[in-house]
Amino acid sequence: MTVETEAKLVERLAGHRRRFDALFARYFDSLAGRPLGRGSFVPEALKTVRDMSLNGGKRLRVALVHEAARLVTPQPVPGLDEAAISIELLQTHGLIHDDIIDDSPVRRGAPSVYYGYRRRFPDRERTALGLAILAGDLAAFLSVRVLLDAPVPGELRQAMAAAQARAGADTVLGQFLDLERDFGAVPDRQALDLVSEYKSARYSVLAPMELGLLAAGADPARHGEELARYARLVGVSGQMHDDRLDLFGDADTVGKPVGSDLREGRRSYAVCAILDATSGAERDWVESVLAAPDCPPETVARMRDIARRHGVDERLDAEIRRAAEAASQVAARWRGRWRDDAVDFFEGLPLWGTRHRPTAPGVAHGGV
Amino acid sequence: MTVETEAKLVERLAGHRRRFDALFARYFDSLAGRPLGRGSFVPEALKTVRDMSLNGGKRLRVALVHEAARLVTPQPVPGLDEAAISIELLQTHGLIHDDIIDDSPVRRGAPSVYYGYRRRFPDRERTALGLAILAGDLAAFLSVRVLLDAPVPGELRQAMAAAQARAGADTVLGQFLDLERDFGAVPDRQALDLVSEYKSARYSVLAPMELGLLAAGADPARHGEELARYARLVGVSGQMHDDRLDLFGDADTVGKPVGSDLREGRRSYAVCAILDATSGAERDWVESVLAAPDCPPETVARMRDIARRHGVDERLDAEIRRAAEAASQVAARWRGRWRDDAVDFFEGLPLWGTRHRPTAPGVAHGGV
Repeated sequence: MTVETEAKLVERLAGHRRRFDALFARYFDSLAGRPLGRGSFVPEALKTVRDMSLNGGKRLRVALVHEAARLVTPQPVPGLDEAAISIELLQTHGLIHDDIIDDSPVRRGAPSVYYGYRRRFPDRERTALGLAILAGDLAAFLSVRVLLDAPVPGELRQAMAAAQARAGADTVLGQFLDLERDFGAVPDRQALDLVSEYKSARYSVLAPMELGLLAAGADPARHGEELARYARLVGVSGQMHDDRLDLFGDADTVGKPVGSDLREGRRSYAVCAILDATSGAERDWVESVLAAPDCPPETVARMRDIARRHGVDERLDAEIRRAAEAASQVAARWRGRWRDDAVDFFEGLPLWGTRHRPTAPGVAHGGV
Repeated sequence: MTVETEAKLVERLAGHRRRFDALFARYFDSLAGRPLGRGSFVPEALKTVRDMSLNGGKRLRVALVHEAARLVTPQPVPGLDEAAISIELLQTHGLIHDDIIDDSPVRRGAPSVYYGYRRRFPDRERTALGLAILAGDLAAFLSVRVLLDAPVPGELRQAMAAAQARAGADTVLGQFLDLERDFGAVPDRQALDLVSEYKSARYSVLAPMELGLLAAGADPARHGEELARYARLVGVSGQMHDDRLDLFGDADTVGKPVGSDLREGRRSYAVCAILDATSGAERDWVESVLAAPDCPPETVARMRDIARRHGVDERLDAEIRRAAEAASQVAARWRGRWRDDAVDFFEGLPLWGTRHRPTAPGVAHGGV
């Protein structure tokens, strides 16, 4: 990837993001204007969903929607804005519920929605939990609704919403797989990849591309296999990168304390690689750390040393690069069929992503 | 309502229910056949959603879909089955999350999904909570997906899904209002009606009718005001009836222990009527009961006596009847415009509903 290509990619990402953030704020303004004026719970919930959504990272999903349409046409395409809003609301839904499931106090540098409500109702834990669940549900229904109200023909709205609902259901299945990963036998690479694909790649990469292509008049089903392959590889590479950072990164770069996977006994790519590389008493120690929650920083440091000694960091780097390069090669084959400057984007993104993701707080779900 | 009309109504309800229950089971069979074979969490979640859905009460929502289409045509109408499945899945979603929010151990005579998972993972409360939240999310996405895959033109799928997504979002808003009802000043009648409308009437009465009409080729927006009015009145009458039963019913008829609203400090129609009717020391006592959770049966009995002494039961009866009759009159005005036998159904349902609802376990959300 040349410096020039990279500069262009970064500029395009920033452009999509700037435009989207303003659009997203206007969308929430339009919701706040609706009646149902009684009480404070509804306006507070809408504000909660809004704040969570607007505090939103690099907006790679939004860029994917727009760049997928640009594969087909350089002209403005109606429906892309609603597709992007829908995807980001689906993300908000997932994050709100994830933070309940993981009992996470912090998200994107602010209190998670769950902990925000707990702080507001310190004596009513059950009310706080209920409000957080409902805030997540609200984001999900708004996500579907904004697509179905898009100013495009009904057929297209239907096709976009169907792709999005499929991604929503797949993501939930991925979250089941993710929870199950920490039970029973240590998952193999295939099992880990399946989690990455369902839990993040489907809604973070595949669905945005399908929506962009649909809006631009293309039929993503005709390229189903290669789009799914691209998405899967980007998802796997991204998840590995996140998992690597959680063990080997430093807190300042990552934007949150490292070692959370170890503390929560989560069998990430990095953790599984350590289990795979160790044996005897050393492996027993690794397993004992995973079995006991909330290990101290010294334990994280010792785990990191063991991992380095066995070359786990280098092996992960190689795997991340391999997946990113494979994704890039899938996109390279779109040249000729689709427009060059958008193909450049999809070719460059996986490689750039693995290098620059550390500084992307809010790029959660391990996705893009 | 004549004995003949009532017999016909009961027979039609039973017919819709029988047909639907078989269809719903086949729908879940088709889901179980899909791949993603790893592990047990996903198949278990699908089974959980299936069991909860199939253990499903009188299916009044399903009847409303079919009868709304019959307002327009006696012919078979494609898309009604998917509409009915979608509505019942939305209901399943709401019940699963509601039971978490209310911490309810039992639903429809079986353990709630939440308590089922808690029993399965007695040492991992957080995992159980997560799985229950995800099972509810899964039902919501399946609900949208089944509509968007209906074998009807894309335009119609879009219109039906839009109505359904609107109802989903409105129901969540209703749940916020419902939680808020128990805080701050005692809600007035208008506030209670707004909860009934949003939390139950919109998805349980209005959306089924909109979907049935849409599938049959009518435009529900042309009759928006009267459909909304009918739904609101049926919802209010039904919710009042549920609230009345919770205080004055007996456990055998209701199918669950009575007094749950009192035990949970819930400001139901009945509870608000008691607050309204009492004053001085008596009202202080009522408020003290509401403020302390889990009151014993003797307290429920004393509250019932106080309520009876103030004529709260009779006042509620009168209000229930008034709302049901007003709903019936709205439907009566459809005669001439729409088909007689279906108008009979909508005219009879509110009146029949207020008399026969006690024996309907699983007719939850206070809705129909």
